[in-house]
Amino acid sequence: MSVATHQDSSAPSPVSLQVGLIGQKFMGRAHSNAWSQVGHFFDLPRTPQLHTIAARDATELERFAAKWGWAQATTRWQDLAEADAIELVDIGTPNHLHAEQALAMLAAGKHVACEKPLAGSLDDARAMRDAAAASSAKTFVWFNYRRCPAIGLAWNLVRAGRLGAIRHVRAKYLQSWGGPETPASWRFDKSKAGSGALGDLGAHSIDLARFLVGEDITQVAGALQQTFVGERDGANGERVPSDVDDATLFLARFEGGALGSFEATRLAHGHLNRNTIELNGELGSIAFDFERMNELSFLDARDPSAERGWRRIVATSAGDHPYAAAWWPDAHVLGYEHGFVNMAADIVRVLSGAEPELPLPDFEDAWRTQCVMEAAGLAAREGRAVELSSIS
Amino acid sequence: MSVATHQDSSAPSPVSLQVGLIGQKFMGRAHSNAWSQVGHFFDLPRTPQLHTIAARDATELERFAAKWGWAQATTRWQDLAEADAIELVDIGTPNHLHAEQALAMLAAGKHVACEKPLAGSLDDARAMRDAAAASSAKTFVWFNYRRCPAIGLAWNLVRAGRLGAIRHVRAKYLQSWGGPETPASWRFDKSKAGSGALGDLGAHSIDLARFLVGEDITQVAGALQQTFVGERDGANGERVPSDVDDATLFLARFEGGALGSFEATRLAHGHLNRNTIELNGELGSIAFDFERMNELSFLDARDPSAERGWRRIVATSAGDHPYAAAWWPDAHVLGYEHGFVNMAADIVRVLSGAEPELPLPDFEDAWRTQCVMEAAGLAAREGRAVELSSIS
Amino acid sequence: MSVATHQDSSAPSPVSLQVGLIGQKFMGRAHSNAWSQVGHFFDLPRTPQLHTIAARDATELERFAAKWGWAQATTRWQDLAEADAIELVDIGTPNHLHAEQALAMLAAGKHVACEKPLAGSLDDARAMRDAAAASSAKTFVWFNYRRCPAIGLAWNLVRAGRLGAIRHVRAKYLQSWGGPETPASWRFDKSKAGSGALGDLGAHSIDLARFLVGEDITQVAGALQQTFVGERDGANGERVPSDVDDATLFLARFEGGALGSFEATRLAHGHLNRNTIELNGELGSIAFDFERMNELSFLDARDPSAERGWRRIVATSAGDHPYAAAWWPDAHVLGYEHGFVNMAADIVRVLSGAEPELPLPDFEDAWRTQCVMEAAGLAAREGRAVELSSIS
Amino acid sequence: MSVATHQDSSAPSPVSLQVGLIGQKFMGRAHSNAWSQVGHFFDLPRTPQLHTIAARDATELERFAAKWGWAQATTRWQDLAEADAIELVDIGTPNHLHAEQALAMLAAGKHVACEKPLAGSLDDARAMRDAAAASSAKTFVWFNYRRCPAIGLAWNLVRAGRLGAIRHVRAKYLQSWGGPETPASWRFDKSKAGSGALGDLGAHSIDLARFLVGEDITQVAGALQQTFVGERDGANGERVPSDVDDATLFLARFEGGALGSFEATRLAHGHLNRNTIELNGELGSIAFDFERMNELSFLDARDPSAERGWRRIVATSAGDHPYAAAWWPDAHVLGYEHGFVNMAADIVRVLSGAEPELPLPDFEDAWRTQCVMEAAGLAAREGRAVELSSIS
Repeated sequence: MSVATHQDSSAPSPVSLQVGLIGQKFMGRAHSNAWSQVGHFFDLPRTPQLHTIAARDATELERFAAKWGWAQATTRWQDLAEADAIELVDIGTPNHLHAEQALAMLAAGKHVACEKPLAGSLDDARAMRDAAAASSAKTFVWFNYRRCPAIGLAWNLVRAGRLGAIRHVRAKYLQSWGGPETPASWRFDKSKAGSGALGDLGAHSIDLARFLVGEDITQVAGALQQTFVGERDGANGERVPSDVDDATLFLARFEGGALGSFEATRLAHGHLNRNTIELNGELGSIAFDFERMNELSFLDARDPSAERGWRRIVATSAGDHPYAAAWWPDAHVLGYEHGFVNMAADIVRVLSGAEPELPLPDFEDAWRTQCVMEAAGLAAREGRAVELSSIS
Repeated sequence: MSVATHQDSSAPSPVSLQVGLIGQKFMGRAHSNAWSQVGHFFDLPRTPQLHTIAARDATELERFAAKWGWAQATTRWQDLAEADAIELVDIGTPNHLHAEQALAMLAAGKHVACEKPLAGSLDDARAMRDAAAASSAKTFVWFNYRRCPAIGLAWNLVRAGRLGAIRHVRAKYLQSWGGPETPASWRFDKSKAGSGALGDLGAHSIDLARFLVGEDITQVAGALQQTFVGERDGANGERVPSDVDDATLFLARFEGGALGSFEATRLAHGHLNRNTIELNGELGSIAFDFERMNELSFLDARDPSAERGWRRIVATSAGDHPYAAAWWPDAHVLGYEHGFVNMAADIVRVLSGAEPELPLPDFEDAWRTQCVMEAAGLAAREGRAVELSSIS
Repeated sequence: MSVATHQDSSAPSPVSLQVGLIGQKFMGRAHSNAWSQVGHFFDLPRTPQLHTIAARDATELERFAAKWGWAQATTRWQDLAEADAIELVDIGTPNHLHAEQALAMLAAGKHVACEKPLAGSLDDARAMRDAAAASSAKTFVWFNYRRCPAIGLAWNLVRAGRLGAIRHVRAKYLQSWGGPETPASWRFDKSKAGSGALGDLGAHSIDLARFLVGEDITQVAGALQQTFVGERDGANGERVPSDVDDATLFLARFEGGALGSFEATRLAHGHLNRNTIELNGELGSIAFDFERMNELSFLDARDPSAERGWRRIVATSAGDHPYAAAWWPDAHVLGYEHGFVNMAADIVRVLSGAEPELPLPDFEDAWRTQCVMEAAGLAAREGRAVELSSIS
Repeated sequence: MSVATHQDSSAPSPVSLQVGLIGQKFMGRAHSNAWSQVGHFFDLPRTPQLHTIAARDATELERFAAKWGWAQATTRWQDLAEADAIELVDIGTPNHLHAEQALAMLAAGKHVACEKPLAGSLDDARAMRDAAAASSAKTFVWFNYRRCPAIGLAWNLVRAGRLGAIRHVRAKYLQSWGGPETPASWRFDKSKAGSGALGDLGAHSIDLARFLVGEDITQVAGALQQTFVGERDGANGERVPSDVDDATLFLARFEGGALGSFEATRLAHGHLNRNTIELNGELGSIAFDFERMNELSFLDARDPSAERGWRRIVATSAGDHPYAAAWWPDAHVLGYEHGFVNMAADIVRVLSGAEPELPLPDFEDAWRTQCVMEAAGLAAREGRAVELSSIS
């Protein structure tokens, strides 16, 4: 028996979900991969279709679209707003472009999934938050680290009361690629990126901490920001100012009284992509390190004292760990791209009327993270504690 | 400017590579994923096309084909031999089926990529080796762990003489899913699997050791095999004999004088998928643990003694580490499926007349691994050392 | 041939060094052990003799003296000042007693080795610093962690320029014994201890950071202090206020521009005695964790990028690592008490006119650490950055 | 009040225990330290007194005796047998001297504590076992690693049934000091040492495995021995044959059906003193690594699967962990010498009529370990499985 399969069928399936994407750089690839892989790892009520990719560089565009399977491509991102078939627009552009694009898409009635941080400035972020609140569309922000299975396990443990009241939060995102040998790019240009390590890395830490603790930050008690490398090589041999923070550290208080310590840096040799978070509570502790993203360390203080110790849990077991329902056995480990794939699955679920496996960040939620970033910058500049209630 | 992309074009591109696959279980998925993802991670001279999937269970087949993008599906694996367009047949079936299928495909002039171990019996393996030798087709065996970037780095270090003469090889593959609570399956049936832990896990260890050391094993000095769980629950509530080895350990000598220690078990609590290998040489050592597959530990004994220590290298840097030319930055870690994706890339390279990034195992190579498995079984049964020269 | 040995000879050897000690609790034991063991691990120009122990509790005192080999014992610590034979007085009492005792001993012309922190208050510390400056006696403060061989290796690496300019300092001292189940003691009484986690643990972190970086702290940029447990069980069943900081966190700038992050807590489950410090410099990084006190992690950023990784150095090799000239082979690891033994060796060396193996902290040095503690407390109370130049 | 203490009193206390020691090299120091420190860490019914040290090198002897506090010294070890006051003779000499010395001491009615391995040959070992059996004296063998608190915890867990039936035992003792650069010594001379890595390191592994599993080994299923370095520099520039095993590996079966894998080598770069053992049982697993001697890894397979993981237990808590009743808090870690100190405490307890904290190895017990060593050598030489019942 030979069976002809139907993938070439041109009519969209009734359960398809047409997606448009803006951006073809790193995040353009990560999101394209998520949309093309999500159906291979999850059984979902709707099937995402890669409808149109929009990006500025026409030379690269056709090749990119063909490689990733986008049915159409355009150099005019506004086309996505005008394409009736597209339900969801995914924004993977530099931070200073998020607001204009997101507002246009919301105005056109599209659901929007935006890269993090929400925006390059507090004003932009506020506008996006307000537009989302005024719209019936759904919004999403790609805080992908929430979607590691090990983080999902951590969230479950905290929700189940296994840590008790949280007393300490340590969230560090350390990288090492930002030395003087690294050439200029939009990421080092404050007018485009809004900030450096703070928005690029610290935003993830703030989101993860708020997500896991389940509380907002009420005060930034003090902060340090530093630009270690003041200029960099430009594309044409010229020297270009590099004016973002290479490192930002701050201390914070959470609503429930936990003390938070945050650090984001691009200049910490030995740390390639070390996104770590640790929580200490009355009854236990958890610790996560993205360089070993499949593992969660858990300390149950109610274990008998003679046997108490950090448990290294390989959080890859279907049935036990969120997002681990892959088609492979336990401890056949996941990689970086699965954070995006897992989040794409949850977006599809939400847009199908179902529940996400874990809560998704929307513009309102990402706005609060942006306010913490703002408070950290202010605390560093002014050498003082900043109440979050003063940021709005 | 809007750009129509060409993915729907029905005529195969002149550089396409038509692939047929047999099997739709775990390995069917892993291979399907590899063929569909390889083009997203590598720029290759030819583009694999998922031409036809063959598998017995017709109920599952259409769904599987649609999900993974196979253009056609059939319940008759012989169809693949008869399909002129197909150049490469990929075999992902239980061990006892490999020989018949591979021989048919070679006879039809197809290139063959076969799951490991090469076969369920030495006779089958020999027939496959001989058929491959007599054919002008290329053969490949999916020893996927060779394709972890960290293993690639290890291979490079050994080849560059950084370890000097190898003295010790420790290769363990420890899992823990084989307790009495696990129901019967073909993997516990010696008539289908050929062996248990030895063929399932030990074959990987033997291949990795031979690959990294770059030498053959000349003697199995002693071995232990044990069936700890003698029967298991069948599909209909009956008890079914479980007659494979739950664990196999053996000691071996390599051509160059290195001493090898091998262990494969499905009954080691605390180890979900711990495929580890360590080499100690005159000048240094390397160690790998698949549960942390992105890392290689390297000890350079020529470092000044005060500063000497195991280096934890995160082997994910494009330019530095094999197969790491992903579109994401350093330490954005890879997962299990990439071993298959990376091997698919090398198969495509070879079938395009190019060089693989690292040597690929063919039937001849996998035959030698099968001979070591045979010697280990014999040594265990007879309580004596077995020379590899006596196995043929 | 039988040889009578001379240990019982009552006349002090010309090279003996008579030591008096105040305190018979935890630190009394640690110091007694150091003085009795130092001659077993080091060949020194003078031999410490345990002359007199002073402590309040007469009941315990005789037993303590006999156990540890103190020739005499007294309940009047002032006796030590009056004993002509005693050259060095070692103070192992609670913080609020340090000043009175140290001043008396300096006035009597004794060298003084004082437990850390220097004092329970800034006023006390200043008086001690001034008295030391006015005296020809030598002073020492038992910052024992400086004397771990792994820290010695770290110091050597920094001094040799292997890290380049330091950019980041992370110093945490995390413990978990301070929950509500722990009864009251002087350590929870601000009038006696001066502070809680800050003076008990944070003082070590500040000293280690200043020692390794080789620079002073110029600013505390922000701080958080928290008393999580407000009262505890007293000795007679009553509830006693617990008014010290259970946790103190602060951010700081070093003279050379490095950014420091400090945390001291007694309420972090999973950390029994985790005194950690990490430095990231332009050329490399080092990391230390006292729970694995024999190891130093070192990252040399000038290693070829493909081979770069944290090296786990077991810093126990005679000839290679400070204080490692023990009578046992490499990696026969040291324990906690050796920090004190090693420091005792250096004190003996200094009092013999020789050089210590690594720089020793004196009252002036410990005063600067005390100023940072003061600034951290002030920054926390007032919610603002505090310049160290304002503390004196 | 001034209190004169009584340490100088010349009359031995009624509860003193007079000890004689033979040997002033590495083990002479380790044992001297144990006898002088045991009273500082334990409250014992009797107090060991360092009565007489015996060693050949008179030049070193007086200095050694003075340094460690031996009351008398002699170059004639037979003096110890003749000294009526001495109750316990401690033997810290090379392996080939153990038998003669131990037999003489037993004949003189002394209790004997002998360094491991029991002897340099099976004949010697048998004679010692027989002499001990015929004597009313107590015998002890310094298998010091049994006395790490973490091993004590492991023993407790196994005894309490927490691992269930043991299926796998992996015991490795890896060092790296045995390269060709290391000069000749008695340790490389088979006529003195009896064996190389096997007796020096493997004996520890066999003892630990037998101790923890609580069963004897019934079969060596196969073995490998190798001399990698055939000659070494002698003391006078000449080349001296080096004829011991640099490495020995063997596989074994335990009485209860567990499969054991053993490896001892002096040529494994990256391992300074890595004495490791792991047990996998039906219900859980434990793992120990002496380079992190204060830690035990424990996996409880009855933990809920989502939370199951290796627990890193810092086994240093008084009340919870054997031998951890030190005068310092949790996680103020112990070092190498404490294995000897802890064993000395147990010897004193036994010679006081009390129970040791954990079972002590005597000559009968060490004889069984010696038989396993013999079987391993035979299996390697003859290329066959060896039943322990055939060794006697």
